[in-house]
Amino acid sequence: MKYIGACLLLLGSLAGAAQTRDESSIRQIFDEALRNGESYAMLDYLCNKVGHRLSGSPGAAAAVEWGRHVMQDYGFDNVYLQPVMVPHWVRGQKEMGRIVNSRKMGTVEVNVCALGGSIGTGPSGISAPVIEVRSFDELKQLGEKNVKGKIVFFNRAMDPTRINTFTGYGGAVDQRGSGASEAAKYGAVGALVRSMGSNLEDYPHTGGLRYAPNVPQIPALAISTRHAELLSKLLKDDSGLQFYMESHCEILPDAPSYNVIGEIKGSEHPEEIIVVSGHLDSWDLGQGAHDDGAGCVQAIEVLRLFKAMGYKPKRTVRAVLFMNEENGLRGGTEYARQALAKKEKHLAAMESDRGGFTPRGFTLSMDDAKKTKVRSWKPLLEPYGLADFSQEGGGADIGPLAPQGVPLLGYLPDSQRYFNYHHTAEDTFDKVDKRELEMGAAAMAAMVYLLDQYGL
Amino acid sequence: MKYIGACLLLLGSLAGAAQTRDESSIRQIFDEALRNGESYAMLDYLCNKVGHRLSGSPGAAAAVEWGRHVMQDYGFDNVYLQPVMVPHWVRGQKEMGRIVNSRKMGTVEVNVCALGGSIGTGPSGISAPVIEVRSFDELKQLGEKNVKGKIVFFNRAMDPTRINTFTGYGGAVDQRGSGASEAAKYGAVGALVRSMGSNLEDYPHTGGLRYAPNVPQIPALAISTRHAELLSKLLKDDSGLQFYMESHCEILPDAPSYNVIGEIKGSEHPEEIIVVSGHLDSWDLGQGAHDDGAGCVQAIEVLRLFKAMGYKPKRTVRAVLFMNEENGLRGGTEYARQALAKKEKHLAAMESDRGGFTPRGFTLSMDDAKKTKVRSWKPLLEPYGLADFSQEGGGADIGPLAPQGVPLLGYLPDSQRYFNYHHTAEDTFDKVDKRELEMGAAAMAAMVYLLDQYGL
Repeated sequence: MKYIGACLLLLGSLAGAAQTRDESSIRQIFDEALRNGESYAMLDYLCNKVGHRLSGSPGAAAAVEWGRHVMQDYGFDNVYLQPVMVPHWVRGQKEMGRIVNSRKMGTVEVNVCALGGSIGTGPSGISAPVIEVRSFDELKQLGEKNVKGKIVFFNRAMDPTRINTFTGYGGAVDQRGSGASEAAKYGAVGALVRSMGSNLEDYPHTGGLRYAPNVPQIPALAISTRHAELLSKLLKDDSGLQFYMESHCEILPDAPSYNVIGEIKGSEHPEEIIVVSGHLDSWDLGQGAHDDGAGCVQAIEVLRLFKAMGYKPKRTVRAVLFMNEENGLRGGTEYARQALAKKEKHLAAMESDRGGFTPRGFTLSMDDAKKTKVRSWKPLLEPYGLADFSQEGGGADIGPLAPQGVPLLGYLPDSQRYFNYHHTAEDTFDKVDKRELEMGAAAMAAMVYLLDQYGL
Repeated sequence: MKYIGACLLLLGSLAGAAQTRDESSIRQIFDEALRNGESYAMLDYLCNKVGHRLSGSPGAAAAVEWGRHVMQDYGFDNVYLQPVMVPHWVRGQKEMGRIVNSRKMGTVEVNVCALGGSIGTGPSGISAPVIEVRSFDELKQLGEKNVKGKIVFFNRAMDPTRINTFTGYGGAVDQRGSGASEAAKYGAVGALVRSMGSNLEDYPHTGGLRYAPNVPQIPALAISTRHAELLSKLLKDDSGLQFYMESHCEILPDAPSYNVIGEIKGSEHPEEIIVVSGHLDSWDLGQGAHDDGAGCVQAIEVLRLFKAMGYKPKRTVRAVLFMNEENGLRGGTEYARQALAKKEKHLAAMESDRGGFTPRGFTLSMDDAKKTKVRSWKPLLEPYGLADFSQEGGGADIGPLAPQGVPLLGYLPDSQRYFNYHHTAEDTFDKVDKRELEMGAAAMAAMVYLLDQYGL
C-alpha cells in the first residue's frame, strides 16, 4: 500500500509538473506572439504588396514566391513547392447590372459581380424579365413555363439569427453554388444571386459556382444585399420589369501553380507530421486579407513562434499554404494524393480559414476518443479565450486527408464580422486587427504544441 | 416515499418547464435583436448627428435631448432628466508638441493632445529638457535635482501580453491620472504621457488626470505611442534635447447637465429596480462610439427589446444614461445619492462601458452566494458566446451604488480592439460592427430577464 501510495504521489506530481510546464509553454507562446508577433507584418506585405491572388493569376504566382521566401528566410528545415495544375478563370472587365424601366424608379444601376467560374454574357449582355425565388423547391414548382427565357433571382438571405454566421452561410450558399444550373434546368437565361453577407451592404460578394454536367451553362452574377432588397421591392409592384446583365469572364486552360510547404523536422518522431495550414489563393476582389491571408501567415507564424522560443517539436510540424481552395480545391486534393502515395503519417492536420478574428476555440473532426483527449486540454487554453471545442469541422483544404483517417482541427475565431468581408472588395488588410490576428497564431501554436507533446 | 417521489418529479418537471421557457425567451431576445435590432441605427444618429459630447459641451446638451426623445418615442413608462452639475473643461485650439534640435533628426513635430482636466500652457508654450521615466519610483529616485525645470516623460507601455487589455490599461493608467502631480512634486514644468494604446499608433489618447491637492498644477499632454518610441530613442542619443509643448485648455465654472432615465414599470414588484446603463458623455475627440455611445444605445435597446417581444417585467427595468463618467463621475454619484435619499430598492445595476464588441460574459461585483446564482444561469447564456463570469467588476457609474449593497454587473465584450479607439479621434461609428453591437444589447437583455425572473 505504501509503495502504491508513493507511486500515485509520484505520478500525481509528475502530472502536476507536466501541467505546470504546459501552462508555462503556452504562456510563452502567447507572450512571444503578443510582444513580437510577425503575423501582422507578414499579412501587410501579402495584402499590400502582393494583393489578390486568384488561382492562375500573376498575383497567385507572386504569392507562391512570397511564401517560399518568407519560410526560407525564417530558416525552416525544408521549404519546397508542390506542383499542381489549377483552374484559370478570369473576370475580365467590370460587370454591369441594371434594373430597366421599373415602374417606380425607372432604370437603376445595381452593384453586381460575376460568380467565380461563371461564363460571361459577352459584350452584348442579356436583357430579360426576372423571376424571384427563395428556394430550389419554389423554382421547381414554378417550372419551365414560368422560368424559361428569364433571369432567376435567388433571394434567400442568410439567417441573421444564427449566432454562428457560418451556419447562416451554410443555409444560403446553395443558391450561389448550384443556382445557375438549377435555373438552367428550367430554361433560364441567367442567374442573379443575393450576396452571402450578414448585413445590408452596397458591395457584392463573389464566390464559386459549380455547373452541373449536362445542363446548359448560363451566366451568374451576385448582387449586393441592399440591391437585392431593392430589386425584390420593385418586382412586387412590377413583375414585368427587365434586368440587364453584362459580364466578361472567361475560363482559360488550367495553369501550373503550387502548394507552398515548410517544416520544422521532429526531434524524436520526424516521420509523424502535424500540418498547420491556410490557403494562399484568394478571390480577385479586395486583398484576401481575412480569406485567407490570415490563415497563411498564422500557419507560418506557428513555426516561427516555436523557433523564436527555442521549442524543438518531437514531431515534424509542417506549414502548408494550399493553392486553389476557392475554385477547385486542387491543392488540397494533390497534397492528400501525395501524402497517400508517399505513405506519410499525419498525426493531425489543422487549418485556419475563418478569418483573423479573436480566438474562440477549435472545431474537431475526429473520433470521440480523440475529441475527448483534445477537450481535456481546455483548462490550458481557456485563459486565452479558447472555450469552444463543441463544433464539428476541419477545413476545406485538409478535408481530402480525412479518408486517410487523419484527425482534423479547424481554428475557430469569432465569426460575427467574417461575412462583412468574405469574397468582397472589402476584404482588405485594414479590416484585420493586429492583436486578434497574433492571438490566433498563438492559439494555433498552443494546440500544435499539445498535439506534439501528447499525440492523439 | 411515494409522495416525496411525486413531489420531486413535479419539482423536476416545473424546473424543466422554467428552463425551457427561459431558453425560449432568451432565444426570442436574440432573434429580435439580430433581425430588427435598433442599437446600430441609434448609435449612427448619436455619433454622426450629435457627435462628441464632453460634459458641459453643446454636444452633451444635444445628447441629453436625444436620449430623452428616443426613450419617449419608444413609449417607455417614465422618462425624465435628473439634474447634476458637471465639470466644464475645454480643450481650446489644437495642441502642439515638438522635439527640438535633436541630434539625429533635428526638429520633429509629434502627435499630442492635452489630457482632460489639464491646465494649458498658454500661447507661449513651454520649452524644456525631457527626463524619461517608467514609474513613480524611478521619478522619486531621480528626485528634484534631476527633475526640476524639466518635462517628465512617462513612457511605461501597457503590457501587451495581458489577454484582458483592461488589465494592461490598469497597469499603465496611473501615469495619466497622477503623473502630472507626481512630476510637479519634484519641480517639473510639464508632463508628457505615453498614450494608453495597445499598439504602435500615430494618434494620441486623451483621458482624465487628477491634480493632487497642494501640489503646483502643470500642463500635461498625451503623446502617440509611435512618437513616444521615437522620443525615447532620440533621448538615448541626446539626453539634452528640448521639447516644446503648447496647449490652450481651460477649466470653466461647473455647468448644469443631466442623467437621462427611462423605465418600464414592473408588473408585480414595481418598487424593485434593475438598472441597465451606459454613460452619455464622451471625450471630445472622435465620436464616443465605443466609449460609450455603445453602452447607451444598448441600455435603451434592452427596454425596447422587451417591449417589442411583449415581455412585461415583474420588476421595474430602468435605463440610465449617466452624465460625466469621463471627468468627474458626477452623474453616477448624484444618481446614487438620490437613490439613497428616496430609499429606492435596487435589485441590481448593470453597466456596459467596454465597447460594442462581441459578447464574452459579465463581470460580477456582489457576494459569493449571489455570484453562484448568476453563474448557475451560464448554460442558458453560453450558446450566445457568454462564457466568462469569472471576473470581478461592475462599472464606474454604478460604482457609487455599491455602498448601498446593490449587486453590480458589467457587460463583458471581447477586449482586444477596445484600446485601439479608447479616448481617440478614431472612436467613430464606422469602428462598430452591427452584429456585435446588437448581440451585446441582447446579452444584456437576457441577463436582465433572468434577474427579473429569479431575483438575486
